[in-house]
Amino acid sequence: MNRVRLLDTTLRDGTQGEGISLTVADKLRIAQKLDDLGIAYIEGGFPAANPKDQDFFRRAQSELTLKNAKITAFGSTRRPSTTVETDEGVRALLDSGAPVITIVGKAWDFHVHEALRVELADNLAMIVETVAWLKKHDREVIFDAEHFFDGYRHNSEYAISTLQAAADAGVDWVTLCDTNGGTLPDVVADIVKQVRQVVSVPIGIHAHNDCELAVANTLAAVKEGALMAHGTINGIGERCGNANLISIIPNLELKLERPCLPTKAHLVHLTELSRFVSEIANLVPHSYQPFVGHSAFAHKGGIHVSAIARNPDTYEHIRPELVGNERRILVSELSGLSNLQHRAEELGLNIEGRTQEVRTLLNRIKQLEYEGYQFEGAEASQELLFVKLLGGYEELFQFESMRVEATQQVGSAITSEAIVKLSVQGEMVHTVAEGNGPVNALDEALRKAMRPFYPVIDTMHLTDYKVRVLDEKDGTAAKVRVLIESTNGYDIWRTIGVSENVIEASWEALADSMSYFLLCVAKCGEAQSMELT
Amino acid sequence: MNRVRLLDTTLRDGTQGEGISLTVADKLRIAQKLDDLGIAYIEGGFPAANPKDQDFFRRAQSELTLKNAKITAFGSTRRPSTTVETDEGVRALLDSGAPVITIVGKAWDFHVHEALRVELADNLAMIVETVAWLKKHDREVIFDAEHFFDGYRHNSEYAISTLQAAADAGVDWVTLCDTNGGTLPDVVADIVKQVRQVVSVPIGIHAHNDCELAVANTLAAVKEGALMAHGTINGIGERCGNANLISIIPNLELKLERPCLPTKAHLVHLTELSRFVSEIANLVPHSYQPFVGHSAFAHKGGIHVSAIARNPDTYEHIRPELVGNERRILVSELSGLSNLQHRAEELGLNIEGRTQEVRTLLNRIKQLEYEGYQFEGAEASQELLFVKLLGGYEELFQFESMRVEATQQVGSAITSEAIVKLSVQGEMVHTVAEGNGPVNALDEALRKAMRPFYPVIDTMHLTDYKVRVLDEKDGTAAKVRVLIESTNGYDIWRTIGVSENVIEASWEALADSMSYFLLCVAKCGEAQSMELT
Repeated sequence: MNRVRLLDTTLRDGTQGEGISLTVADKLRIAQKLDDLGIAYIEGGFPAANPKDQDFFRRAQSELTLKNAKITAFGSTRRPSTTVETDEGVRALLDSGAPVITIVGKAWDFHVHEALRVELADNLAMIVETVAWLKKHDREVIFDAEHFFDGYRHNSEYAISTLQAAADAGVDWVTLCDTNGGTLPDVVADIVKQVRQVVSVPIGIHAHNDCELAVANTLAAVKEGALMAHGTINGIGERCGNANLISIIPNLELKLERPCLPTKAHLVHLTELSRFVSEIANLVPHSYQPFVGHSAFAHKGGIHVSAIARNPDTYEHIRPELVGNERRILVSELSGLSNLQHRAEELGLNIEGRTQEVRTLLNRIKQLEYEGYQFEGAEASQELLFVKLLGGYEELFQFESMRVEATQQVGSAITSEAIVKLSVQGEMVHTVAEGNGPVNALDEALRKAMRPFYPVIDTMHLTDYKVRVLDEKDGTAAKVRVLIESTNGYDIWRTIGVSENVIEASWEALADSMSYFLLCVAKCGEAQSMELT
Repeated sequence: MNRVRLLDTTLRDGTQGEGISLTVADKLRIAQKLDDLGIAYIEGGFPAANPKDQDFFRRAQSELTLKNAKITAFGSTRRPSTTVETDEGVRALLDSGAPVITIVGKAWDFHVHEALRVELADNLAMIVETVAWLKKHDREVIFDAEHFFDGYRHNSEYAISTLQAAADAGVDWVTLCDTNGGTLPDVVADIVKQVRQVVSVPIGIHAHNDCELAVANTLAAVKEGALMAHGTINGIGERCGNANLISIIPNLELKLERPCLPTKAHLVHLTELSRFVSEIANLVPHSYQPFVGHSAFAHKGGIHVSAIARNPDTYEHIRPELVGNERRILVSELSGLSNLQHRAEELGLNIEGRTQEVRTLLNRIKQLEYEGYQFEGAEASQELLFVKLLGGYEELFQFESMRVEATQQVGSAITSEAIVKLSVQGEMVHTVAEGNGPVNALDEALRKAMRPFYPVIDTMHLTDYKVRVLDEKDGTAAKVRVLIESTNGYDIWRTIGVSENVIEASWEALADSMSYFLLCVAKCGEAQSMELT
C-alpha cells in the first residue's frame, strides 16, 4: 500500500493561530526538526503576503540539510485582474525557489461570488492558468481546494470542476480542504469516496479542528484513499487549529498500519518535536495531549497503579517509549502508601521496615498539597522531600535573612538589588547582587554565596519561571505558586515554591533548584545524566 | 428519534486528571451548572473510595435544586471475597442516597485474570449479584463494561456475556467503555452495531481521548444506536482525558440533529459552563478549544476578515452565539490597516480622514508586539492604546518614582512594602503601603494615592495575576510578561505589562487596569456594563 505523505503547515497555517508568532530563525529550527522526524513536505510560508517568509525560503536553501522533506511555498491562484505572467503573488512563489508549490483556490461557488467576486468560469481559468504556469516552471504543484466539503454539499458539480481544472493543467495533487472545520467524519469519508471515482490525481486532506474532529476526519479520508495528510505540530492554527500531526502520525503508523514516516523507529522523535515546537512558539505544552503529553501515560488511580506494575498492557493502549514519551506513577493527594513506596523504590531509597517514616512523608506531602504545592509538575522538589525524610539528606545551607528591592525614578530604568545572608558549611556568608529583576538579583546573590563552596553551580542555569495565583478570588493578595525550570545543558528539572509573597515562593524554588543540582552532582558526577533513579 | 442521554462524569472520572482537585463546595457548584445546561445524569463521585464524595452525596440532597439531572453514584461490582449484602463498597453506594448507580465491572477476560485475579465465571456472578441487589433496592442501574472494546477484540463471546449478565439481572443501561482510549471510530461503530444485534438493553458509550478521537468515537457510537453518551466538561480526566461533552453536545444538537438537551436554546450556556469549570478547577482555559475557546471564532487573516464582515457563513461553521461564544476580529502583528480601522469603529472612535494617526497606532502596536506585548489576551490595555492615540485620552496621573522591598529574617515571616510618588490632578502624592507580597503592596500604595481623587476604585479588584518568561533561554534574567485580570463584580478586563523586571511589568499592568476602569466609569457610570463598545 502507498505510503501516506505528510504535509506539515506549522510554519504557514500554524502561524495563523492566535498568539503565535515565529521568527525566521525559529522557522528554520522547526523545519530541521520536522525533517528529522521524516515529514515529506514542509510548507514554509506565504511569500507573497509576508516578507519574513521570503527570507525563510532564501535561508532554507543554504542553511537546512534535509534528508526527507521538500520545502513547499504557499500562495493563491493569480488574482482576477492579472495574468499569471504578471501576477506578483505567482512571481513571489517562483522566486521563493521552493521545489514544491501549494496553490489555494476557491471550490465553493458561494465563495467565488461572495469573497472573490468573479464569475464561476473565471475562477476555473485562474486555477488552470496558475497550475499550468507553475508546471511549465517545473514545480511539483499541489492544488488546495478551499472549502471543498462545504462547496461539494452546495454544488458538487462545480466543486469537482475545480479539481478537474487543476488536473487538466497537470497538477500533482489536489487537496480537499475543510477550511471552516465543520464537517463530520462520515461526510468526509463519503465525499472522498465520490471524488476518487471521478478524479484521477492523488488526493490530499486538509482538516481544521472546529468540531474537535480534525484527526478523525483525516483518518477517515486516508481510509477512503487520500494519500496526503496536511496538519500542524500540536494542531496549532487559526481558531481551533489544524489537524494535529502529532496524533495523526502514531494513529496511522501504529493503529491503521499505514506508514507515513521513513521507518516506524522515527516515531520516537514525536514527543521531543511536540515539546520543541511548544517551546519555540512560547506556548505552554498541553499536559493532557494525546501520545506526547506529560500526563498521557501518567497513572494516578490506585487500582490502575498496581495493575500497571504487573502488566502495562492492562491500562496502556500503546507503549509510551514508541513515541518517545514515558510512563509516570503519580504521588498525589489521592495516592496511598503503595504509590509512595513505589516511588521511593524508584529513587533507590531503602524503605524496608520504615513504615513510620514513610507515613510521616505521606502526611507531609498531603499537608503541602493542601497548602497549594503540586509536585506533579515539580518532581525535583518532590525528590528532595523524599531524600530529606527518608535518605538522610542534609541542607547545604541555613537561611539567615534576605532583602530584595526594586527602585524606579521617572526617566530612568528600574533597578533591582538583593541581599542574602546564609550559613554555608558552618561559615556565615553575606552577599549582595544586582539583577534585571528582583528574582534575577536573588538568583545572583545566592550564586555569589554558594560559588566559593560549590563552583559547579555555574554550569547550571534557569530556563523558565512561571507564577500562578492559587486562589484567583483574592488577586494580588492571594497565594502564588512559582515553578522554576533549570538545566545543566544535559537534563532539565523543575522545582516549586508556594507563598503569599512571590519573592519568598521564588526563593524556595530557586534554593530547591540548586540543592537538587548539587545533590545530583554529588551522586552521579557533573557530566553524567542527572536522573536520581 | 430517541433523545441521547448525557452522563457527565466531570466530578468523578474528571477528578482523576493530573493536577485536578475539587472540594465538595466546588462539586456542588459545578453540579448546579450542569443541571442548568440540561445534563441528564451527573456522576458525582465514588463514595466507597473517597469520604469527600460521601459528603457530596449527602449535601447534594439538600443543597441542589435540580430541574433536569439525576445524581449518580459510581462504584465497583462487589469484591471477589464478599457477598453483596456485606460488601462495603456496595453499601456505600446505597448509603449515598443517589437514585442512579453506575457499577463498573470487567469485560476483558485478560483483566479478569490479570487485575481481578478470579475465574471468568466468578466475574459474571459478581456482575449479576451486584446489579440484582441494587435493582432490588429500586435504583436505576448503569453497568459500565470496563475495557469493553479491547475485551471484545480479544474474546467477543466473553465480553458480550458480561453485558448479558447485567441485562439478565435487570440493568437499565450497559455502557461500552474504551477505558484505555486506544480504539478507532470505525472499530467502535462496528462493535456497537454487533452488540446491538445481541443485547436488548439500551447502550451507552464511554470514550477516552488517548488517540485524540474520543469525540469521534462517541459520535460514531451514537450513529450506530448508542443512546447514552458519557463525558466530562472540557474533556478533563486521567491521562489524556475523557470524551469532551463541550464538543459532543453541539455536534449532536447542531450537526447530527440528535437532541441531547431539553431544548436547543440550552446550548447557549455551553461557553459559560466550560469557562466556569476551568476556573473552579484552577485550569487555564484552553484558548483554541472547539466551540467555546476564546479563539474559536477569532479571525486574523486579512482575507478572512473582509469576507467575514460581508457574510459570516463564509468562514464560520456555526454562529458563535448559538453556543454562547462570540466572534472576534484580531488586531495583531499580521493585521493591516483594515483590521485596525474595524476595531476602532467597534470602539466608537471616529477615524474619518485620520489615516496618519491610524498608521501611527498600527506602528506603535507592531513595535510593542515586537517587544513582547500580546494584546490578544489583554484587550483593556489595547483599548487604552486606541483611546490614547485616537481618542484624546489623557493619563490620570504622572509617574514620579516607586520603590518596592521584601525582607525576611530567619524565624519570622517575610514582609513587603511599596512606596509610590505620583502627580494626580496636578497634586504630588507620596504613599506607602504594606502587602502580602511586593505586587500586593504596590497595588495598595497605588490605591492609596488614587483613592482621594477617585474613591470608586475600591469597587474594583484584581482576580488573577500571571507571569510568563518571554525568552526561556535566559531564565530569570529574561523579559517577563505580566497579565492581570480585574473585575468590578459585573465585568472582567485584562491588562498587560512587559519588562525585564517583574515589578515594572506588574506596575504597568496594574496602572492600566485602574486607568481602564476609571475610563469606563467616566463613560458609562459605575454600575453599567463596562464594555466600551
